[in-house]
Amino acid sequence: MLVADLPTPALVIDRGALTRNLDTMSAARPGARLRPHVKAHKCTALAHEQARRGHGGFTGATPRELLGLARAGLGDDLLLANQSVDHERLRALATSGARITVAVDSEATIDAAARAGIGEVLVDVNVGMPRCGVSPEEAGPLADLARGRGLAVRGVMGYEGHAVLVPDRAERTKLTADAMASLVRAHDAVGGDVVSSGGTGTYDINDAATEIQAGSYALMDTAYAELDLPFEYALAVVATVIHANAKWTVADCGLKALGMDHGNPAIAGARVLFCSDEHVTFTPGTPLAVGERVLVRPAHVDPTIAYHDAMHLADGPHLDADVVDRWAVDLRGWNDPGIASRP
Amino acid sequence: MLVADLPTPALVIDRGALTRNLDTMSAARPGARLRPHVKAHKCTALAHEQARRGHGGFTGATPRELLGLARAGLGDDLLLANQSVDHERLRALATSGARITVAVDSEATIDAAARAGIGEVLVDVNVGMPRCGVSPEEAGPLADLARGRGLAVRGVMGYEGHAVLVPDRAERTKLTADAMASLVRAHDAVGGDVVSSGGTGTYDINDAATEIQAGSYALMDTAYAELDLPFEYALAVVATVIHANAKWTVADCGLKALGMDHGNPAIAGARVLFCSDEHVTFTPGTPLAVGERVLVRPAHVDPTIAYHDAMHLADGPHLDADVVDRWAVDLRGWNDPGIASRP
Repeated sequence: MLVADLPTPALVIDRGALTRNLDTMSAARPGARLRPHVKAHKCTALAHEQARRGHGGFTGATPRELLGLARAGLGDDLLLANQSVDHERLRALATSGARITVAVDSEATIDAAARAGIGEVLVDVNVGMPRCGVSPEEAGPLADLARGRGLAVRGVMGYEGHAVLVPDRAERTKLTADAMASLVRAHDAVGGDVVSSGGTGTYDINDAATEIQAGSYALMDTAYAELDLPFEYALAVVATVIHANAKWTVADCGLKALGMDHGNPAIAGARVLFCSDEHVTFTPGTPLAVGERVLVRPAHVDPTIAYHDAMHLADGPHLDADVVDRWAVDLRGWNDPGIASRP
Repeated sequence: MLVADLPTPALVIDRGALTRNLDTMSAARPGARLRPHVKAHKCTALAHEQARRGHGGFTGATPRELLGLARAGLGDDLLLANQSVDHERLRALATSGARITVAVDSEATIDAAARAGIGEVLVDVNVGMPRCGVSPEEAGPLADLARGRGLAVRGVMGYEGHAVLVPDRAERTKLTADAMASLVRAHDAVGGDVVSSGGTGTYDINDAATEIQAGSYALMDTAYAELDLPFEYALAVVATVIHANAKWTVADCGLKALGMDHGNPAIAGARVLFCSDEHVTFTPGTPLAVGERVLVRPAHVDPTIAYHDAMHLADGPHLDADVVDRWAVDLRGWNDPGIASRP
């Protein structure tokens, strides 16, 4: 089957680009120095490719992602790099057989972890982006509190989300260094072996982290593509032209097939006008006929993939490339599939 | 179970508001004068509520939606109000046992319908929005072409998408009247009993349509809420606070739980700062503690629901309302679930 024969809309991965991205990152941050984040791809088959390259630990943003990894035999060392006070879901992780570490940044999240039977935590430190995490000053006392509740504190994590997408490398380096100074200060107070941090934009800049939580590098993104990174865009949505007239053309890939928070998708040689639920209206560079296919490049990979049930591996970023495999996007949603299927 | 006890993020429907919305619309456009569009809710349980109020015909935007309706016993008269040249999916509709009508606007879409064994079509007419549909002048010849291919032409459809969201009623009425003049002209040339058109914003303005394809009225939307409509907002996403400090608060409802093409969601009394994949960062009106719940109102309902596997019916739009039912969002995606579950 060719890419142009897939029922549409459908996610297509350029296998060559993906392979090069995975290999480049594994060479730069071998083994445990990378803890791949699965939130971007939500795919255990892709995670297996990362594990095969020596990365036995994974990062997730939801209990569901970690539980799926555990069930796929990838449970050697899983980090929930996010806060949760959901007892049932934490309990499911604690009893999954996987090694589970969760991020904590408050008494409530510590209590939730302890009560659910989670054994290990990282203290999440805010290093500059307004989201979760304690101040560096609060990190030591919080670690003591966690140990007092019987939890093993493996170290700290802190995500320099305000730095990872800064295009200028010198500025990105400076922001990262400042953020890591905070994180190292917190680590001095907390102890433990782990300093977990970073992302695709800082994988070769962040030298304070013992492990980098990069995920986007595998498939890349329009925002990261603005940076000076050695990773290639590897994802597209193949769509079918369903209407064409002298002024515009319409293909069957719309708001429910695309993450839209970064704006409209792109189509090579075309100008995208707008998206509806199941349509993208655009003016192509050269005329297209109804039934022809186009490759649509979403502006944001993560929320795009979360709409699809599968990604198709192709031997190249072209419509006439062979489809060589189909990978389920099996980590999406928040409910255990067993629970979700209840009426 | 209360809304505040649901695992989060989770869709919550205010049953009272939904019931009033359904009843109001059914009173205004009884029976076959309304052909509810399911693309907004993607839920056969909700479609059954619409059928129970006398609307035996349904509109869908994807073959998948229609196939799901057919399997749920709602196949009396299903309209694919969209173009498709997907032979397998059209064939699945043609052999589903349901009465299927599809929109056509080109020789290619006519050929695809005829080849797949579809029996009935509507000629889709462009009445002002740059998407699918032929010009009114092309409609008659296209109907002849369809009849020549053995298809029964039931009439025309045309969506005044450029009018439905115009806040000023007089302007909306004028735009709708102009659009319907085009559609009626096309209908005169095409023949048939059906003039299918309209949406939530024009349900009581569009007097040319024999049937209105409204869908958003059931759960409503922030954009439609700007209009002078008698429908109430009925949807929220319940989220859990996972971090709170003196400056901001974070809940577990982000880009993968929200359609973002209309911008950030709203939280009553709060200012929403930004969303990440699994987070919304906001400043609440009154302080919230970790573990407390908030109701998040998405800016766009349709692409929000498409991220979720279920919606929860609650006895009121409050955190302490009882959850009285759980409805599967069983029409999402594009693949037949049997196909989607293949490895």
